[in-house]
Amino acid sequence: NRALHRIIVWTLLLTVTVCDGWLFDGFAARRHSESDEVALWPLPQKFQTSVDAFRLSSASFQIVHAKESTAGPSCSLLQNAFRRYYSYIFGNGRKHGKNLENVFDADLAELQVQITSADPECDGYPSLKSDESYQLEVNQPTAVLKAASVWGALRGLETFSQLVYEDDYGGQNINKTSISDFPRFAHRGILLDSSRHYLPLKVILANLEAMAMNKFNVFHWHIVDDQSFPFQSRTFPDLSHKGAYHPYTHVYTPADVKMVIEFARMRGIRVLAEFDSPGHTFSWGKGQTGLLTPCFSGSSPSGTFGPVNPILNSTYDFMTRFFKEVSTVFPDAYIHLGGDEVDFSCWKSNPDIQKFMDQQGFGQDYRKLESYYIQRLLDIVSTTNKGYMVWQEVFDNGVKLKADTQIHVWKEKPPYQDEMARITAAGFQTLLSSPWYLNRISYGQDWLGIYKADPQNFNGTAEQKKLVIGGEACLWGEYVDATNLTPRLWPRASAVGERLWSDENVKDVGSAYDRLVKHRCRMVRRGIPAEPLYIGFCPHEYSGN
Amino acid sequence: NRALHRIIVWTLLLTVTVCDGWLFDGFAARRHSESDEVALWPLPQKFQTSVDAFRLSSASFQIVHAKESTAGPSCSLLQNAFRRYYSYIFGNGRKHGKNLENVFDADLAELQVQITSADPECDGYPSLKSDESYQLEVNQPTAVLKAASVWGALRGLETFSQLVYEDDYGGQNINKTSISDFPRFAHRGILLDSSRHYLPLKVILANLEAMAMNKFNVFHWHIVDDQSFPFQSRTFPDLSHKGAYHPYTHVYTPADVKMVIEFARMRGIRVLAEFDSPGHTFSWGKGQTGLLTPCFSGSSPSGTFGPVNPILNSTYDFMTRFFKEVSTVFPDAYIHLGGDEVDFSCWKSNPDIQKFMDQQGFGQDYRKLESYYIQRLLDIVSTTNKGYMVWQEVFDNGVKLKADTQIHVWKEKPPYQDEMARITAAGFQTLLSSPWYLNRISYGQDWLGIYKADPQNFNGTAEQKKLVIGGEACLWGEYVDATNLTPRLWPRASAVGERLWSDENVKDVGSAYDRLVKHRCRMVRRGIPAEPLYIGFCPHEYSGN
Repeated sequence: NRALHRIIVWTLLLTVTVCDGWLFDGFAARRHSESDEVALWPLPQKFQTSVDAFRLSSASFQIVHAKESTAGPSCSLLQNAFRRYYSYIFGNGRKHGKNLENVFDADLAELQVQITSADPECDGYPSLKSDESYQLEVNQPTAVLKAASVWGALRGLETFSQLVYEDDYGGQNINKTSISDFPRFAHRGILLDSSRHYLPLKVILANLEAMAMNKFNVFHWHIVDDQSFPFQSRTFPDLSHKGAYHPYTHVYTPADVKMVIEFARMRGIRVLAEFDSPGHTFSWGKGQTGLLTPCFSGSSPSGTFGPVNPILNSTYDFMTRFFKEVSTVFPDAYIHLGGDEVDFSCWKSNPDIQKFMDQQGFGQDYRKLESYYIQRLLDIVSTTNKGYMVWQEVFDNGVKLKADTQIHVWKEKPPYQDEMARITAAGFQTLLSSPWYLNRISYGQDWLGIYKADPQNFNGTAEQKKLVIGGEACLWGEYVDATNLTPRLWPRASAVGERLWSDENVKDVGSAYDRLVKHRCRMVRRGIPAEPLYIGFCPHEYSGN
Repeated sequence: NRALHRIIVWTLLLTVTVCDGWLFDGFAARRHSESDEVALWPLPQKFQTSVDAFRLSSASFQIVHAKESTAGPSCSLLQNAFRRYYSYIFGNGRKHGKNLENVFDADLAELQVQITSADPECDGYPSLKSDESYQLEVNQPTAVLKAASVWGALRGLETFSQLVYEDDYGGQNINKTSISDFPRFAHRGILLDSSRHYLPLKVILANLEAMAMNKFNVFHWHIVDDQSFPFQSRTFPDLSHKGAYHPYTHVYTPADVKMVIEFARMRGIRVLAEFDSPGHTFSWGKGQTGLLTPCFSGSSPSGTFGPVNPILNSTYDFMTRFFKEVSTVFPDAYIHLGGDEVDFSCWKSNPDIQKFMDQQGFGQDYRKLESYYIQRLLDIVSTTNKGYMVWQEVFDNGVKLKADTQIHVWKEKPPYQDEMARITAAGFQTLLSSPWYLNRISYGQDWLGIYKADPQNFNGTAEQKKLVIGGEACLWGEYVDATNLTPRLWPRASAVGERLWSDENVKDVGSAYDRLVKHRCRMVRRGIPAEPLYIGFCPHEYSGN
């Protein structure tokens, strides 16, 4: 009789073998062959499932804390997640709780969530070191999700919800399944840019939702830049009052920032704020007189301004106070300090800068001046006990860096493979964005190239490869705002999500296409306007707007 | 004192001179220099304005039928338009009507709309010959909009609404202005494809709204194709029941189609339906057995199907009945019959087709077989008293065409300029889409290339140029659906809108950029998620979704 139970093994890992001991005869399980309707994204590390299907009743199915769990009803992060995933599975507005006793033999009665660490981290923040692994056993009458902390539980809840599929009668079903899962990389980020265009909170929150659906765990908030300064500082309110597109309608208040951080935390997502300097700071100058370098035209000031003025003590006083505030506003252990694309022409034009260069013995090497500035900035930020992340130029220009600095690779030339080899050979942690500038668009299925890129695809030792903490999909803001950001990012960023979560051998684009088509329809059904990969349809088309 | 009244002439036409007789001294007009906040799109043919500004009170401003108008309150098309444009100007939910008598000296009390033709065409459908010209005089206390028919009035109402600007106190203002306007081309279309992806009605209606904001007047509905047949036919219900993505959720019922046509009519937009054949018909075959050519593999049928089978009488019987229905469902005087991209390989494989080719003396020239089919189809459609439009291949392949056939140019090779020269030299009307395939995307400001293309930019006589009836922006559906269609189309299609409406000398991209940035913010404010051209912000960002 066991021959009836065709075991479907989806995982590509050699370490997984079909479990001999799965004897289903004792279960009152229906046979259901629609497991191909299930599309897991990103693909779990180890995964086996059978054709035995259980029903989920919206009236009685529950997600509950396991008795043995170190977390309980006081863990609002999980309570919220239970509610969220119940809604994803059944939609809103279902009656529940009337028939809790009315569980049939073929039903999956509940999902028990068991946190195993002494500290479940219910009220903590996710970090680079968070344990996101989980084990999920779906069996009748109870499914069990085990994780060391809430962070793994969140990932497992997402996977559980993706296992549920709708049958032809609108009922929700799930197959007997066993999953053991963990991320390949610890840093899986999305960069949004709220300076080139202001992004209303609603857009940011919707993208945090989409990130959780794709197991991303870092929101890299490129919050300010040349064009506008929407971050409202308590210490320096003029920065946004004069530097934002509009001082009231186009700013993020402290309450807004708090909400983003908490909304992200509830989904296991870190908020990594970037305050890029000394370049990309034009908007800072509007509210902070004297911060930027006055450019000269011949022997007189031209009236325009360049990068942050690195020769004034007032600059470092300002940065000290500013980053002190930033370090308290953003709880994450890291701050992104930028450091990219510094244009030296204004510094070159300024006689005071030239004099300083002479005094310091920098000659005409403005990279040394840049390094001088960055070095002092890093010292300032170090006093806040934050780690820092910088764009690759800071490494390229030879700035002395703390050993735990993370170098963010974004350039296409030199080839990013060479850059990552150099950075890791020097012993630094690194993360990749070069092939994942998703603001760049072209006609057709460009997710394929996005999917194929791999952060560990460079010549280096195993030790070097271990220094790769992950990567980020970047959506720079020149051409996107609330009107088009979300469909432009999703599901293209999903391709990055699987690359950073799943095993390195998960790279069959045929399988990826089939799963991603269904995964994007799932995002659409959950209210995310993820664009189509190609011709086709979703059972439930996007109805927002 | 007259020197104070700086007359701003925006028009680029030499025929317009500053009117000497504008004496404003008698008006209780405020001076307002913010006319640069006004961004007209597309730019009217003749336009002069002054700095004298009048206020519009939401409580008392009215859009009314002029006493002399041949249209009155029974003209529901205009009644609806009045309400729509009042909302665009003031937003919804304002109190109105309490202070109709309370008009101040500096106020613009009302806009009078005067239809001058004996038949205002309130209940008619727009056509290629509709007169869309209008004259608009904004002066205190009354503005007057004159047009021969409702179609011109609709265009003038849009322009009037674009003249209104918000001051720093949230009040609405309009400057003394005189406009005489008419379209450069009679056919200004947008093609949407509801076959590669199903487009919910909401999306189609939103785009009809956006079309009206850009003075487009043709919705080319590429309603069916290989991938799906969402058009629900009363005569052949199996076509959509078996050929749509889903027989209930992914179809357009007769009521849906009626709604689209009426919604478009209210905005002066024709609905030009395309039923493309003999190629692009795979989905037709699902609900109409025997319609498509069976392909052969060697001497036996392969089980796959090719284009419509042109050698069977049953094919022409079907087409006769089908197009009889189509011609009554769609009131427009034209039907688009497609005729593009016919793949001959299936015809070649079929022995019955080969036999027919021999009988007809076609040799191995399958273009002759295609022409045979198209010729019979055109004869069928002619009996419905419709004119027809076809893709350029039908002309290229030498099909005998009625003199009033419109040839739709879409290929990039040979250069469209050569093609249009040939078509017009043969005496046919033509319209251009080659440079306006807006489904094709690239990184950056591609609206510039879109804007620069001109349908009359080919070598030909003045007579030939007159045969160019306009053009269409096409958004083919492979990569767009409800999630991303609207921001991908707008404001890029707006560039086509100005090219087809405004004078041929309106081509300054600097002026166009400034106006289009504001015009896209206006679309956003009216609820259309038109994407940004580049860095910047809108006073009212998109809040939908």
